Amino acid sequence: MLGIDGIVAIGGDGTFRGALELSRMGIPVVGVPATIDNDIGCTNYSIGFDTACNTAIDCIDKLRDTMQSHERCSVIEVMGRDAGFLALYVGIAVGATAVLVPEKKLNIEEDVIEKIRDSRIAGNTHFMIVVAEGAGKAYDIAAAIRDEIGIDPRVTVLGHIQRGGSPSARDRETATRMGYYAVKAFAEEKENTVICIQNGTITAIPIEDALKMKRSLQMDRYEILETVGIKAFPED
Amino acid sequence: MLGIDGIVAIGGDGTFRGALELSRMGIPVVGVPATIDNDIGCTNYSIGFDTACNTAIDCIDKLRDTMQSHERCSVIEVMGRDAGFLALYVGIAVGATAVLVPEKKLNIEEDVIEKIRDSRIAGNTHFMIVVAEGAGKAYDIAAAIRDEIGIDPRVTVLGHIQRGGSPSARDRETATRMGYYAVKAFAEEKENTVICIQNGTITAIPIEDALKMKRSLQMDRYEILETVGIKAFPED
Amino acid sequence: MLGIDGIVAIGGDGTFRGALELSRMGIPVVGVPATIDNDIGCTNYSIGFDTACNTAIDCIDKLRDTMQSHERCSVIEVMGRDAGFLALYVGIAVGATAVLVPEKKLNIEEDVIEKIRDSRIAGNTHFMIVVAEGAGKAYDIAAAIRDEIGIDPRVTVLGHIQRGGSPSARDRETATRMGYYAVKAFAEEKENTVICIQNGTITAIPIEDALKMKRSLQMDRYEILETVGIKAFPED
Amino acid sequence: MLGIDGIVAIGGDGTFRGALELSRMGIPVVGVPATIDNDIGCTNYSIGFDTACNTAIDCIDKLRDTMQSHERCSVIEVMGRDAGFLALYVGIAVGATAVLVPEKKLNIEEDVIEKIRDSRIAGNTHFMIVVAEGAGKAYDIAAAIRDEIGIDPRVTVLGHIQRGGSPSARDRETATRMGYYAVKAFAEEKENTVICIQNGTITAIPIEDALKMKRSLQMDRYEILETVGIKAFPED
Repeated sequence: MLGIDGIVAIGGDGTFRGALELSRMGIPVVGVPATIDNDIGCTNYSIGFDTACNTAIDCIDKLRDTMQSHERCSVIEVMGRDAGFLALYVGIAVGATAVLVPEKKLNIEEDVIEKIRDSRIAGNTHFMIVVAEGAGKAYDIAAAIRDEIGIDPRVTVLGHIQRGGSPSARDRETATRMGYYAVKAFAEEKENTVICIQNGTITAIPIEDALKMKRSLQMDRYEILETVGIKAFPED
Repeated sequence: MLGIDGIVAIGGDGTFRGALELSRMGIPVVGVPATIDNDIGCTNYSIGFDTACNTAIDCIDKLRDTMQSHERCSVIEVMGRDAGFLALYVGIAVGATAVLVPEKKLNIEEDVIEKIRDSRIAGNTHFMIVVAEGAGKAYDIAAAIRDEIGIDPRVTVLGHIQRGGSPSARDRETATRMGYYAVKAFAEEKENTVICIQNGTITAIPIEDALKMKRSLQMDRYEILETVGIKAFPED
Repeated sequence: MLGIDGIVAIGGDGTFRGALELSRMGIPVVGVPATIDNDIGCTNYSIGFDTACNTAIDCIDKLRDTMQSHERCSVIEVMGRDAGFLALYVGIAVGATAVLVPEKKLNIEEDVIEKIRDSRIAGNTHFMIVVAEGAGKAYDIAAAIRDEIGIDPRVTVLGHIQRGGSPSARDRETATRMGYYAVKAFAEEKENTVICIQNGTITAIPIEDALKMKRSLQMDRYEILETVGIKAFPED
Repeated sequence: MLGIDGIVAIGGDGTFRGALELSRMGIPVVGVPATIDNDIGCTNYSIGFDTACNTAIDCIDKLRDTMQSHERCSVIEVMGRDAGFLALYVGIAVGATAVLVPEKKLNIEEDVIEKIRDSRIAGNTHFMIVVAEGAGKAYDIAAAIRDEIGIDPRVTVLGHIQRGGSPSARDRETATRMGYYAVKAFAEEKENTVICIQNGTITAIPIEDALKMKRSLQMDRYEILETVGIKAFPED
């Protein structure tokens, strides 16, 4: 059709819905999941996530350099309108005092203020709060910290910085392998599928099934964060 | 005095004023200029400036990656409450459409809107506006662009990210040399001076004289920016 | 014993064998796999691998910048005395013309010369050869290319550069989670185990069992490389 | 001539000699100095030097990470066939124990062995030797250290990694300004010149004069290195 043998559709659920429509019109399609939010239901990993995490962590490292004096607090807003995967991953990687995700209704007193108090009692003198953009306004959270704790936090909104940059090793290697399996899917007449990673293995799932799948936040990691975060970097 | 042979005071004018007081109390001091603003009057270069510029440029490169579609605009706020050296340097390095500095009273129509219009006529489809924090509010400038040009700019405030990170080659090499000359100043009884770089040469200037010197923005560079910026990266 | 409640032993098989001895002396131990070679049998991932891959890729990107003229060839030796995981991963990520791994007996004619010839026929004008240190001498391979193809390749030995640097997002996040499960293993009396990742899930495997496990090179990835590498970046 | 209004010739002395020939044939030319060696006689700074220095330092930082145990030594070969500017700059920036430059006839006993001995007496336990490629063979120097000191040094040859990468802030800003003045030179009929930086100021020098100028190594910096290097990072 139109001289098109097939389309590799790289993106998220919206992209795959469009691809599904095209497939219904007779154009073979194969989807490859790519979004820095890593929230596509059918796959454990989406291309772009690792690069965005590395960028966010690199920025937070630079912020930490100026937080070494006593009683400093930083509130960093990272990407994630509907999903907290990136915030959670980054929060674990930097040893955040608290991470706020859209999947969990925000209770500032419990999720932020108490955690800073616990962290302070544990001997910490600076506090890193990572907020997914969909979880709450960084400036509101900072205001609450100012009122309740008496420290004036610095707010940083990373924004579209997280969307650019040279791709990381993991994103390049994964993208190459997914691209290979996408082309192979056409060759083996497994069209109208999405190339997914599940439990470390690449598989092709029919688009319609893929679109029905949901990915829920790893609550075990949230628990790790709560355990580790409070005591993070106490020696600094 | 107090068993102190001498103090190397690293910082800006405030630090040097404190050092001057100490020298009057009989403690020998030598100043070393360090501020990411690069606005210390007695020296052409202050330690920290190059690292901050590289960080800002690295972030702006990442923002540019997502600006490749047509008619995009980014407003980036960089450090510089009273001085535009960093904004100007970064603006030239990234080929900014406009740079706003505290040394020049802001006229949004002339300094921003007209430049975007000229750049658009010259064939550009995306526009990078660099604002020193003391020159104007990034959000106000974005609002004006939205109203007058009809593009909704993305705002990024780099903030304290610019203050951290591993020091650049230039900052390390310059810091080592300045430190060497600071120690040498004590050895040669040239105390109560500031180690400065003037026209590429390191000299020691009496603190009192150093504090009276002012550094004005390089207007020749501002002119370069105006010439180059409009046509920057037209092929992108 | 000795006032030691337990030891978290971070490293590879040698470290775990030492830990096993300690456990036999009555000191509880838990192993955490860490080696840039990623060749520990019991786990799909070892801490340090991702950071080393990113460093290698970053260096290879810089080498590629100077390979843009016609008919250039680079031979890059990466870490991997006994295992080719890093070489393979990096090779896929950079689109290498050929990757040489210790797991496969080297046949220079077949594994290097023919691949360069095929790549040249496919229209490529520069060729990137990635060699694990245990697979062959980079200088010998370069000499063979010079003799057979008539291009003088540039040799780069990355060496210990790959062992340093700030850890990547993936290494930090994984290390934090593995550390959490290591401490939890003591709390839950699952001592004398190694914390492993298998099919995307963290589990604790008895050290003795862990030491018996072998990890073989992902030959599916080797195949991907052979398919993709030849045509990689033909438009450059 | 040939419809060419003028040529901006970017490179070193070879490039400028070619440009001079073209100018004699009636084609107006303006030279812009660019070489990572920074050894062009007419200018204090050549485009590319800062990027190469940052790359070298970044690699050396990674090497240092694995040198923290006692009695380790690294020999790093950096670019510089005929000139030691890069080696000297990098050596000062990383606090090298010794820097070997082509401008100074190599005496291994005096220039390397004695310096390591002095550094060891001063309490240091690891030693960084930076060698410009034209000053001596890194492997020979390593062999001498092994024989005389009894430490087996690790050799790293940075090679063409130093030629690539995204340009640094300083290189971008300087290149933009030099390019501006090159175009301006045509407009103001100052053709057949080279755009140079002298004592911090940009000027246009006739090519013929420029080609006669020589740049000698900054021996004051060599002295700084000798003073600072021995005691560098004693607390590590």
